[in-house]
Amino acid sequence: MHPQTTLVIQQAISAWSAQIKRTEQLFSALSDEQLMQEVSPGRNRGIYLLGHLAAVHDLMLPLLGFGARHYAQLDEQFLSNPDDASKPMPALDVLREYWTASNARLADHINQLPAEAWLDRHTAVSPEDFEKEPHRNRLNVLLSRTNHVSSHHGQLLFLKK
Amino acid sequence: MHPQTTLVIQQAISAWSAQIKRTEQLFSALSDEQLMQEVSPGRNRGIYLLGHLAAVHDLMLPLLGFGARHYAQLDEQFLSNPDDASKPMPALDVLREYWTASNARLADHINQLPAEAWLDRHTAVSPEDFEKEPHRNRLNVLLSRTNHVSSHHGQLLFLKK
Repeated sequence: MHPQTTLVIQQAISAWSAQIKRTEQLFSALSDEQLMQEVSPGRNRGIYLLGHLAAVHDLMLPLLGFGARHYAQLDEQFLSNPDDASKPMPALDVLREYWTASNARLADHINQLPAEAWLDRHTAVSPEDFEKEPHRNRLNVLLSRTNHVSSHHGQLLFLKK
Repeated sequence: MHPQTTLVIQQAISAWSAQIKRTEQLFSALSDEQLMQEVSPGRNRGIYLLGHLAAVHDLMLPLLGFGARHYAQLDEQFLSNPDDASKPMPALDVLREYWTASNARLADHINQLPAEAWLDRHTAVSPEDFEKEPHRNRLNVLLSRTNHVSSHHGQLLFLKK
C-alpha cells in the first residue's frame, strides 16, 4: 500500500480513537446519578446513550468483519426503541462494562488490521454492490461511527454540572 | 497520487459534506424563535451555536490556505466567550447568511483542491514541525472539524419540537 494511503487511514483511526477517549473520559466522570438524568428535558437519559453506544460499537465487530458480537440483548431496548423510563434498565455498572469492553475489542482489531484491509468492503454491502461503490469499505464505517459518537458526546456534555 | 489515497481522501470529504448538509438542513428547519432558545437549560442558545459554527468554518479558510476570512468580527462573541444572553446579538438572518456563505466558500475550495494537496501542512503548523508530524495536514483539519460540527448538531437537535 502506498505510504500516503496508510497515512490518511491512520489519521482516520486517530480521529476515531480521540473521540472514543474523550467519550470514555466523560462517562467515567459522570456519576450513576447523573447518568439517570435526561441530557435535556424530554430527551434520552445518559443511561440510554451509554447502552446505545455500547450496542452500536458492539455491532461494529461483525460489520467490520472482526467477529461475532457480544451484546445482542441490548438491541431491543437501545437500538430499536427510544428511551423509556417506565421500563427496567440493565444495571449501570453492567452497561459501563459493555461500553468499555466493546471499545477495547474494537481497538484490538483496529490496531492489528493491515492498512489495506480498511479498503475492503464492510459486511453490510454485497460483493456486487461493492464493485460499483468502492467507498462502502471498512473505513466508511469508521468515519461514520466517529461522527455518531461525536454527536452523542456533545449531548452527554449536558449531564456535567 | 495513488488512486487508493484519492479514494480515502474523497471519503473524508464526503463525511464532511454529509455533516454540513444535515446541519444546514437543521438550521433551515429551526425558526428564529427556536434559535433564541437554549439547547438545554443553562447551555448555549441556538443563535450562539449558529454564530460559533459560522466563525469556526470561516476560520477554516486561512487555516486550509484557501484565502482570507470574512467574519473576524464574530470571534470576540462566538469564539473567545461563552453565550451571554445579556449582550446584543447580530441579527439572525445575518448569522444565517454567514453560516451558509462560509460553507459555500469552503465547498468551492474543497471541490477544486487537488487530492494531493490535502496532505500538505495546514497553516497553523510550521514547516519544521510538519516535517516531524506529517499528519498535521489539511485533511486533519477537515476530520477534526467534521467531528466538531457533528457534536454541535447533536445538541442543536434538542431545539426541534
